[in-house]
Amino acid sequence: MNETESSFNLETYIQRVVQFTENQMDSLVPSEQTRPAKLHQSMRYSLFAGGKRMRPALCLAAVEACGGKWEDAARMAAAVEMIHTYSLIHDDLPAMDNDDYRRGKPTNHKVYGEGMAVLAGDALLTQAFEILADWPGTSGFTAATAVKELAVTSGSLQLIAGQAADLEAEGQEVSLEDLEYIHLRKTSALLTCSVRLGGMAADASSEELEALSKFGKSVGLAFQIVDDLLDITQTSEKLGKTAGKDEVANKATYPSLVGIEKSREMASSLTQEAYEALSMFGSKAVSLKALAHYLLERDY
Amino acid sequence: MNETESSFNLETYIQRVVQFTENQMDSLVPSEQTRPAKLHQSMRYSLFAGGKRMRPALCLAAVEACGGKWEDAARMAAAVEMIHTYSLIHDDLPAMDNDDYRRGKPTNHKVYGEGMAVLAGDALLTQAFEILADWPGTSGFTAATAVKELAVTSGSLQLIAGQAADLEAEGQEVSLEDLEYIHLRKTSALLTCSVRLGGMAADASSEELEALSKFGKSVGLAFQIVDDLLDITQTSEKLGKTAGKDEVANKATYPSLVGIEKSREMASSLTQEAYEALSMFGSKAVSLKALAHYLLERDY
Repeated sequence: MNETESSFNLETYIQRVVQFTENQMDSLVPSEQTRPAKLHQSMRYSLFAGGKRMRPALCLAAVEACGGKWEDAARMAAAVEMIHTYSLIHDDLPAMDNDDYRRGKPTNHKVYGEGMAVLAGDALLTQAFEILADWPGTSGFTAATAVKELAVTSGSLQLIAGQAADLEAEGQEVSLEDLEYIHLRKTSALLTCSVRLGGMAADASSEELEALSKFGKSVGLAFQIVDDLLDITQTSEKLGKTAGKDEVANKATYPSLVGIEKSREMASSLTQEAYEALSMFGSKAVSLKALAHYLLERDY
Repeated sequence: MNETESSFNLETYIQRVVQFTENQMDSLVPSEQTRPAKLHQSMRYSLFAGGKRMRPALCLAAVEACGGKWEDAARMAAAVEMIHTYSLIHDDLPAMDNDDYRRGKPTNHKVYGEGMAVLAGDALLTQAFEILADWPGTSGFTAATAVKELAVTSGSLQLIAGQAADLEAEGQEVSLEDLEYIHLRKTSALLTCSVRLGGMAADASSEELEALSKFGKSVGLAFQIVDDLLDITQTSEKLGKTAGKDEVANKATYPSLVGIEKSREMASSLTQEAYEALSMFGSKAVSLKALAHYLLERDY
């Protein structure tokens, strides 16, 4: 990417990310005809349900920031999106968030049944590791390093910790500290992992990885605060999922704990921190910076 | 292991396997106090529910057959048992087999609720890959090779394929071929992976790995046929789980398709094939041979 900040077109960039990521996933995941067909249809239904592909976008923008090419991070981009998709399928289950719509479409279990939805999630989670295990690596990072990074991020102390704590918090009194615990794990962890894996694909230095970690953590929290804000300020039609769910479920959110205005300020301040973390990458971080801006200013 | 076949004591051997595997898992899985505590309690509840640890036993016996030490395969033994445990937790869910008892205890979702049971299974699956990613490897095999082996085994074409096909087969007409498709994936795949990972830990030759694959496949099918036979011939008390479930669920089994006698013959013949696959290992395979014998002759 040689575009400068002024000429950078985020819309085109995201379109290219979506195309690139979907091509990767399409080539890696067994076809809808592959036995057991219903399982692969269920996996593909959620994988290709029109996600925004923000994690692949962050991953691919990070590989650029560290001087690498998209192709180097192709497996990473697919793997993080598969982890994200699996977590949504399981999160939407009746025993969890009990959501009927996701990305404007019926959720996986509404179409394929709960049993198949559990298995499709399991299979996407499993295949993400298979995909990274086949990564050739760089001089500084092996496939095992990448697998470890993704497994720790997705495990019982990070991503799943966030979901479990979220599940337990429903209807309970939750402090701001508890809420940050949940969101650092439920959202920031995988965003951070996405940029770090992108960095590894470009054989990043430890200073670069550290900066990407700070960036991911800040963007992740900001992203979640914006999500909470959108849930109470937007309609279901615009969100493509059921709006106002958090309030109905009596879920703790940033707006419910600190108010809408303070939540907006927190999101802005975190985005500022994210921009600062990018300073060492100079103009190579144009896409990462644009994505951070987009994540804060989005209205769907 | 220097024991000869005549002096080999399987009971003592399995006790040692159980102790070794449980020590490994205990040191690798976060404590019950680790936040989120309920998630880790749920993971540990099923991990330490008194499983027979047959997959770790096969893994550790395979490392012996290939001239290695148990310690070399410690991570493999823990990883395969965690995959097995995750698959049982998800398989027992109301949307799947809807089992209330497992190993003589209430199933995970009966104790921790369905949402937490889904997450505990997810976390065990994820951590299995983290554990293998930290394996130092041998001259012939890297941690990534081991991760790939486990991921392919556990993925949508093997273990999960078996569960999905099993789920779809309920109440349907199922051929003997279909049943073999299911069991090769639902049972044989992970048993085969267990012995292959044990072989890799001992830096096995490709001929040795091939022999272990044949052994695992045969033992796995025999194991499943015996399981089907036990379901209709034993009481719930002795099995430690609800007996007669297959018949109630109108599930296809070997006995229902070919009869009890023919099923017994098939299991015997497969065990014979398993013994033959072990011939190249000579007396080093004493424990593998004893385990195969045990899997066929067990009555619980």
